[in-house]
Amino acid sequence: MNMSLSNTTKLVHLDLKGAPPRISYLFELIQLFADLGANGILIEYEDMFPYEGELKVLQSKAQPPYSREEILSIQDASNSRGLEIIPLVQTFGHLEFVLKHKTFRELREVDYCLGTLNPHRKRGVWLVQEMLRQVMELHPKSTSLHIGGDEVYMLGLGEESKHRLSTPGHSVHQLFLSHIVKVAKGIQESFVNLKLIMWDDMLRSMTPETIKESGLVGLVQPMLLDYSPALDVGNTVMLMEKYKSAGMSQQWVASAFKGSTTVYTCITNTQRHVDNHLQWFKVAASLSAGIEIKGIALTGWQRYDHLSVLCELMPVSVPSLASCLQTLLQGGFTDEAQMKVVETFGTVEIGDTERLSSRTSSSFTGAKLAKLIVNLMSDVESGELRHFQNNMFVRGWFTPYHRQKRIISPLIAQQIKTQAKMILDVVECNVQDVRQEMCLLYPDSTVQEWMDQHVTPVLEPLQNLLRDMESVLNEMGLCT
Amino acid sequence: MNMSLSNTTKLVHLDLKGAPPRISYLFELIQLFADLGANGILIEYEDMFPYEGELKVLQSKAQPPYSREEILSIQDASNSRGLEIIPLVQTFGHLEFVLKHKTFRELREVDYCLGTLNPHRKRGVWLVQEMLRQVMELHPKSTSLHIGGDEVYMLGLGEESKHRLSTPGHSVHQLFLSHIVKVAKGIQESFVNLKLIMWDDMLRSMTPETIKESGLVGLVQPMLLDYSPALDVGNTVMLMEKYKSAGMSQQWVASAFKGSTTVYTCITNTQRHVDNHLQWFKVAASLSAGIEIKGIALTGWQRYDHLSVLCELMPVSVPSLASCLQTLLQGGFTDEAQMKVVETFGTVEIGDTERLSSRTSSSFTGAKLAKLIVNLMSDVESGELRHFQNNMFVRGWFTPYHRQKRIISPLIAQQIKTQAKMILDVVECNVQDVRQEMCLLYPDSTVQEWMDQHVTPVLEPLQNLLRDMESVLNEMGLCT
Repeated sequence: MNMSLSNTTKLVHLDLKGAPPRISYLFELIQLFADLGANGILIEYEDMFPYEGELKVLQSKAQPPYSREEILSIQDASNSRGLEIIPLVQTFGHLEFVLKHKTFRELREVDYCLGTLNPHRKRGVWLVQEMLRQVMELHPKSTSLHIGGDEVYMLGLGEESKHRLSTPGHSVHQLFLSHIVKVAKGIQESFVNLKLIMWDDMLRSMTPETIKESGLVGLVQPMLLDYSPALDVGNTVMLMEKYKSAGMSQQWVASAFKGSTTVYTCITNTQRHVDNHLQWFKVAASLSAGIEIKGIALTGWQRYDHLSVLCELMPVSVPSLASCLQTLLQGGFTDEAQMKVVETFGTVEIGDTERLSSRTSSSFTGAKLAKLIVNLMSDVESGELRHFQNNMFVRGWFTPYHRQKRIISPLIAQQIKTQAKMILDVVECNVQDVRQEMCLLYPDSTVQEWMDQHVTPVLEPLQNLLRDMESVLNEMGLCT
Repeated sequence: MNMSLSNTTKLVHLDLKGAPPRISYLFELIQLFADLGANGILIEYEDMFPYEGELKVLQSKAQPPYSREEILSIQDASNSRGLEIIPLVQTFGHLEFVLKHKTFRELREVDYCLGTLNPHRKRGVWLVQEMLRQVMELHPKSTSLHIGGDEVYMLGLGEESKHRLSTPGHSVHQLFLSHIVKVAKGIQESFVNLKLIMWDDMLRSMTPETIKESGLVGLVQPMLLDYSPALDVGNTVMLMEKYKSAGMSQQWVASAFKGSTTVYTCITNTQRHVDNHLQWFKVAASLSAGIEIKGIALTGWQRYDHLSVLCELMPVSVPSLASCLQTLLQGGFTDEAQMKVVETFGTVEIGDTERLSSRTSSSFTGAKLAKLIVNLMSDVESGELRHFQNNMFVRGWFTPYHRQKRIISPLIAQQIKTQAKMILDVVECNVQDVRQEMCLLYPDSTVQEWMDQHVTPVLEPLQNLLRDMESVLNEMGLCT
């Protein structure tokens, strides 16, 4: 049986835990997702949800979260374009945006891991259930909910867990499963018939028996995540067969169209994400009868976790998303699929500046920003800037020794200044262009954050070097 | 006529303007130079000479200069081993160690060039003549003196020079020559029969007529400097023929055994310096009759100029010096020449650690230090250390954004700390070993300077990163 992914539900993952689009851009994205052939949006608000009451502290301080009205209108816009909305709310791991707050610190499994909830405290369970309740109440038309559950680091290392584990018949697997089952049952009590989905990674090392005994089967459907262009087909098929043998024949899969290359990647490589989808095709084609792929979520991570830097912004990833969805729709990255992407977005690879600039049709919202970011990152990644301190004049005449002795050869200083300025002038000009365009689509705080994460690390040392040099020259009575 | 360099005078250049050896090591070096077949030492004291009276300010502040007694005993030790001493005192350019002082600032040709003397002031001429006088008085047995004269940057750009140049019949060439002639005549008045030598680079673009008319001919002998392994034989021969046609048939040449690779080179590459000598052989073999090469100075620069970092220390360059002298003595870098070096010093290439460590005979003074420096520089040059800020965890989780927001994932911080410590522990241990050995041969101030120039630039950013990370963790209530 050839289980094609082409006809399954295609969800675009909208990760709002970084770089939340301005609401006007968000509406444009919804239209785009629909135009590209998606059937739904897996939406992860994190700290951009207008939590209320005791949870108000969870709201982002960097910029105001979306308002209740905006969240309702996001759903209206999506539904009217045929897109279902599935909220994603973490309930165990990756609760950094919750547990980083002083008031919830005592609910960490261990103090030095900001992401993982201690599953033994009533207040912790109440906390995640209250989050789910507030989110679901604001999503009256949603029939599915993703309760996260990936990467629950350090589970079992808290004092209460250790105590529990020291009594016979208890394992970390059981700690994990019993919390998930508790949370799942809790939300289903209030929202009957709500379909639940969870990430599968914590289940991977469990036996079918452990899963069966937990009460998870029939309650939550697993979503298998693998974003690699070299996804191991055989292993993945074995995993899906195992879940089936545990009784979970309805499964989801998750690919990626951005945010999975490196933690600091700014420019999306389309081919790598298309390849990931082609691997998933192979998986689907190799499954035995009786496994139903309910749908595929094309994840587009905006960060690896709440405390990491921003990955690729959406405009830089539009050609990748289009290519991945076309691949799903056409059953492969065919000539036709590629042509469609190029026709609409001017290029398949956003980083291929020559091709992009030679097209006039690359007029999607954010196309200009994408082009400017590609341009700026080429400066930032250049050895000339990134390794300026390896410059002969700096290594030879302006070392910590010279900064301390307050002396520099003024003629060499002039050389350094000329070289540094030549680099800085170009970059600083490109920074201004990026700022201006980015501000149209993202909040000012995001623009500043992106700069401080991707540009400041290489600009600042050079700026400091120039400042220190000027200061030494001044002390030598040589104003410049 | 095959003008071999083998039988000419071989001077080893001892550059004391950085890393002045402790007097006990200096005596060992004198013995070494004699053992290796040198005939003399071209000694450049710079700020390590015990200048007196108004010139006392020229004495190095970093460490005491050699005493009058030490300077006399250096000469005794040299002379008794058959080595003549030729002092080298700069008299026009590269007077940074003089003109950096407030009291002599007004004597700069231009304020922003610390090296070049204004040749129009009586006090300036008095200054260099007084330097020559003090040095020569303490070298009663020396019959030759090198008055420098290379790289007289910015000459002609001072107000008085510009005024002079604005009147017809004056050129920068003449400005240069008239100062050199004035200085040369001045010192010969006090020290009759003193033979004078100068660097040739400022003469290169002059016509034979200009040189002839200056009065330089018969007064000073040029020393042609070229340290390149790819020395241009044809051009050099043409230059020497030009000097001959100007009347200067007695000429010196200068090669290099260290200090000419890059401004910050710490490990000497022997082959490159041997190749330089082989090129000089070709030059000597191509000269027409009537040009007499008086001798060759094997330069061993300790810095490019007074304000630049330290180049290779002597122990790291001993195999190179031995190889270059053997090349001169044998007429080429023959198997016999190489064998002799290996027998005595354990290796030809000090950077070739495998060969060095497999020999037991590498027991020259400083051999251990040389080996430790090679070891340490391999750490310092490693991308792992030099580009630690490009580490995935740093780029992903500890950027200027995080330092400013005072937040870091403690689990990631642990990763960064582990990786950083692993690198730092090794380097800091090697630093200690180098310090300990270097202190035996060089003053403490040199040890500190070398570290601050070659090691601190890469260690400090990593140490600062760890410090900032700890501080953020502390503020998060997570003491480590």
